[in-house]
Amino acid sequence: MLETYEFLTTENIAAYLASHPEISSVIDAGSIVDLKEVGDGNLNLVFIVKDKQGKGIVLKQSLPYVRLVGPSWPMSPDRARIEYETTMIHSVAAKHLVPEIYFYDPERYIIAMEDLSDHKVWRTALNLGEQHFGAAEAIGEYIARVLFATSIFGAGAEAHYKGIARAINPELCLITEDLVFTEPYFPADRNSYLPENKVDAEAIINDKQLALEIGQLKYKFMTSTEALLHGDLHTGSVMVKSDTSGKAISTRAFDSEFSFYGPIGFDIGACFANFYIALARATALGRTTHADYISALPEELWRAFEKNFRTLWPSRVDKRVFSDQLLEELLDQWKVDAIGFAAAKMVRRIVGLAKTSDIETLEPDLRIGAARGVLRAAQLAVRERHSNTDIPSLTQKMRKIIEEVQTSGKK
Amino acid sequence: MLETYEFLTTENIAAYLASHPEISSVIDAGSIVDLKEVGDGNLNLVFIVKDKQGKGIVLKQSLPYVRLVGPSWPMSPDRARIEYETTMIHSVAAKHLVPEIYFYDPERYIIAMEDLSDHKVWRTALNLGEQHFGAAEAIGEYIARVLFATSIFGAGAEAHYKGIARAINPELCLITEDLVFTEPYFPADRNSYLPENKVDAEAIINDKQLALEIGQLKYKFMTSTEALLHGDLHTGSVMVKSDTSGKAISTRAFDSEFSFYGPIGFDIGACFANFYIALARATALGRTTHADYISALPEELWRAFEKNFRTLWPSRVDKRVFSDQLLEELLDQWKVDAIGFAAAKMVRRIVGLAKTSDIETLEPDLRIGAARGVLRAAQLAVRERHSNTDIPSLTQKMRKIIEEVQTSGKK
Repeated sequence: MLETYEFLTTENIAAYLASHPEISSVIDAGSIVDLKEVGDGNLNLVFIVKDKQGKGIVLKQSLPYVRLVGPSWPMSPDRARIEYETTMIHSVAAKHLVPEIYFYDPERYIIAMEDLSDHKVWRTALNLGEQHFGAAEAIGEYIARVLFATSIFGAGAEAHYKGIARAINPELCLITEDLVFTEPYFPADRNSYLPENKVDAEAIINDKQLALEIGQLKYKFMTSTEALLHGDLHTGSVMVKSDTSGKAISTRAFDSEFSFYGPIGFDIGACFANFYIALARATALGRTTHADYISALPEELWRAFEKNFRTLWPSRVDKRVFSDQLLEELLDQWKVDAIGFAAAKMVRRIVGLAKTSDIETLEPDLRIGAARGVLRAAQLAVRERHSNTDIPSLTQKMRKIIEEVQTSGKK
Repeated sequence: MLETYEFLTTENIAAYLASHPEISSVIDAGSIVDLKEVGDGNLNLVFIVKDKQGKGIVLKQSLPYVRLVGPSWPMSPDRARIEYETTMIHSVAAKHLVPEIYFYDPERYIIAMEDLSDHKVWRTALNLGEQHFGAAEAIGEYIARVLFATSIFGAGAEAHYKGIARAINPELCLITEDLVFTEPYFPADRNSYLPENKVDAEAIINDKQLALEIGQLKYKFMTSTEALLHGDLHTGSVMVKSDTSGKAISTRAFDSEFSFYGPIGFDIGACFANFYIALARATALGRTTHADYISALPEELWRAFEKNFRTLWPSRVDKRVFSDQLLEELLDQWKVDAIGFAAAKMVRRIVGLAKTSDIETLEPDLRIGAARGVLRAAQLAVRERHSNTDIPSLTQKMRKIIEEVQTSGKK
């Protein structure tokens, strides 16, 4: 049975905002001049509201079902609470790297947050061939700060255990388990791809080493509680704003409704995966300079993550036993994990249910090779990660594969 | 502020039992003839009550503080709920290997359970030089059954996540973190040992590889949620009953108040540790036949664990991705983990706060060498586990060390 509560509409939104006087300085509910629904269509309602002074606010409401499908796929709106709580916790560690939250309405599952419409979704920017310099560094800093703060190192044991209990998110974790770690490796109903990529999808299914590693990664995803992850940190969950020189002056991670306590490598790997997917698009389109820019992003993110984590390390709550040498081992392990999770995320975006616009908006003759490149690069990454975790060298190998298998109309 | 509720006493216990008519077939509250308090003095009150028919019941009540110390060390009595819930969950998987629970009283934190006073505490039996054949096999079966049932393999994802949230146990986990994984590796106030063992305790503190491995093990203890562990599975948490030939006909694991979701190797390692401690005692006392018996227990337990886990494996909830080859890798990893956790448990029992009667009841001239042997065997185990996880061969090496460093009055 679905929960019932009032949904936001263009008609009731002004009155709703007026009923929250605590945000009167953020937006004038009496002079709304612009109102649009921008939800990406998958899960939630998202409204951007502007007043006549040009000030704005975003209202995000969880529906009791998957929006894309409707009430036939019920889903707890409690994910809004999880996103709200995670964003509040993450903002303590990295205020400048998440949207500001104004309030949370637990009765109607509405989060009121900062209007970032002067920012761009990073995926959109990457698809357009734009370069925002420093965004990957900012996201590396974000990951380091929020994961350190919510690890046993930053939070201490008791807060960590209590955080785990509060943040369990079985419903959304199940989506990740199925769509990322399971279905792409079987002939599942929700999988899809171009007929020309059937051979590539079958190669994935027949790759025995990949299958074993995916099993290990899935098990780690389900049984490791290292930190409170974002949980779905792709380039579509990042907003960027740059100055005229292309320097990123504001970078924000949002949409953390898949948040849960999981392995630290997972968020890093999610970013890597989306960089490699963007690389496949740039390669398909013959954008060499853009591909050069993208190829540097994984290492830029990792370096920023590592640097910031190292900076925070001396502030860990309990230094006893958790030695500097342990940090070195953990960093090594997290990098291996990240590459593995990246591979899982790459495969799911090509073969599994949820695609990316990077690849899907390519013409089919280019898409075939781009999809093939992403899959083969993922297979390479999984094999290489145990012997070579040098990100620049690994990225070059992956880029080479992506170039080799690219297709075009000429073919 | 301490919680207040009525404690059980020899005076009020008959009336208390009479107020629970549902157990009238277990014990006749109107004809109590014997009543004794047998709590080991550390945490709880434990009463064994017998009626004139000779039927019995055990009542275990958690106090709102550590009994040994008194109200100055407060501790939530909620640990009784954790023990109750864990025992109920574990009994579904291994009814014949845990005590039967009759009821739980959440207001007074009392668990009413099966009277096992025809059994012996296994540690006591081992200390006496008794051999109960099949007890280690039964405990291996217990571990396999309860850990499989509460892993994602046996429980499925959603039940697993919800179980984690319900079973968090920060207060008792903190005790393990401090006493097992931290204090023995520093000059902590709560550590103690014979003056002659100072050199051995210092060798532990100065063993850099051990320190690093303990850091890894502590991190795994705190961030891995593989299954609902017993959490404190030493030979004092096991009751055994044998027939006249010495064949164990009933073996039960009890006292699971340290239960939490943790790494599967932890319970196995706890047993290993206590076997090696028993081996050091037998060696000190020159009981060669008994030492032969004890030396076979780690492998007996592991084999039974592995065999039972393999038997249960085909019944896992989700076979997709979790392949047979993954099981092989997990079994390998769990064995490595178990040896590491064993070492941590061995060190804590010699240097840290909570000792074992195995060693403590030896005369000092024997105790020096027995303690030294346990510590050196632990150091060896930690180093060996990465290259050699053959339990019989590892055990022989550990036994050799224990024999080499044994001391006696002649010295």
